[in-house]
Amino acid sequence: MILVTHNQHKFLEYEEIFLRSKIELEWYNYEYPELQSDNLKEIVEFSLKHVSRILNRPFFLEDTGLFIDSLGGFPGPYSSYVQEKIGNMGILRLLEGISNRNARFISLIGYFDGKNFYYFDGTLEGSISYSIRGKNGFGYDPIFIPEKYDKTLAEMSIQEKNSISHRRRALDKLLGYIKNSMESIK
Amino acid sequence: MILVTHNQHKFLEYEEIFLRSKIELEWYNYEYPELQSDNLKEIVEFSLKHVSRILNRPFFLEDTGLFIDSLGGFPGPYSSYVQEKIGNMGILRLLEGISNRNARFISLIGYFDGKNFYYFDGTLEGSISYSIRGKNGFGYDPIFIPEKYDKTLAEMSIQEKNSISHRRRALDKLLGYIKNSMESIK
Repeated sequence: MILVTHNQHKFLEYEEIFLRSKIELEWYNYEYPELQSDNLKEIVEFSLKHVSRILNRPFFLEDTGLFIDSLGGFPGPYSSYVQEKIGNMGILRLLEGISNRNARFISLIGYFDGKNFYYFDGTLEGSISYSIRGKNGFGYDPIFIPEKYDKTLAEMSIQEKNSISHRRRALDKLLGYIKNSMESIK
Repeated sequence: MILVTHNQHKFLEYEEIFLRSKIELEWYNYEYPELQSDNLKEIVEFSLKHVSRILNRPFFLEDTGLFIDSLGGFPGPYSSYVQEKIGNMGILRLLEGISNRNARFISLIGYFDGKNFYYFDGTLEGSISYSIRGKNGFGYDPIFIPEKYDKTLAEMSIQEKNSISHRRRALDKLLGYIKNSMESIK
């Protein structure tokens, strides 16, 4: 299976999840164009179609956003850019004095089977912490506390994060779909 | 001359500038796709080519960003999205305790003459105020103080803003180009 991404952190997370499956994961390092949109589906669809014209075989790619309720869903689809520019300290500043810390990570995988396009999403509900905690993971992990936990994603091992993550949930749907379609061929 | 934009504020500003020229401005209200990029030129180029395939006659469109030095250029090309989500209060929060308030507006016009693509930029240097001031203009105008002024763009009349604005400067280059090419035809 080929993952197309320019983000090494993303590849490493997927690689760890794939270790426990019997499928081999290959990294195709390519920075594909992304559309500006409030809508993850529109963004992924555009990129998926673009890459499918270049890579003429099955692959998947994925876009993830952090959506913070009291900021109207910010930073949403622009999470990487916002992380790079204002960082986790910027997010904590924007939330100073705000008690509604509810947020969620949403990952959307786009999969091309060589012919058609498919979409699989995964969500992780949680809240934004009051300080930066933990050194694992990347991006917003040090300020995101998953529902039913009292630690941030960056205070978890990669295995623990991957057992509950948005990315893992989207991937499970993709792998379930592939398994089913293999079986239906037999 | 046709301006393609989905933003009414933008059209009204251009309309006021065109009043003083002898050229008529027509509004083509269309929300064209935009690319995610740090680079205004890449964004405008993509949209310009997209619209040129739909509108088979001369037009221009324009993208503007507010680039704040101490935030690494944030919000930059995502200025509209960031304005909608965290607003001017959000920007002031991000700059609390920060003394370097330097910022600039950059507008980039993309022009299609029916055959080729041209680009014209305009910059307005200034700084971010410590509070929201003024009711005119739109977007970041209430927190942007142009260089050599002590009021924000939102404390100016539309005529005063248009006499110095990034948008005006980019448009002057476009109109200068068109005038020259008309004369060279004669």
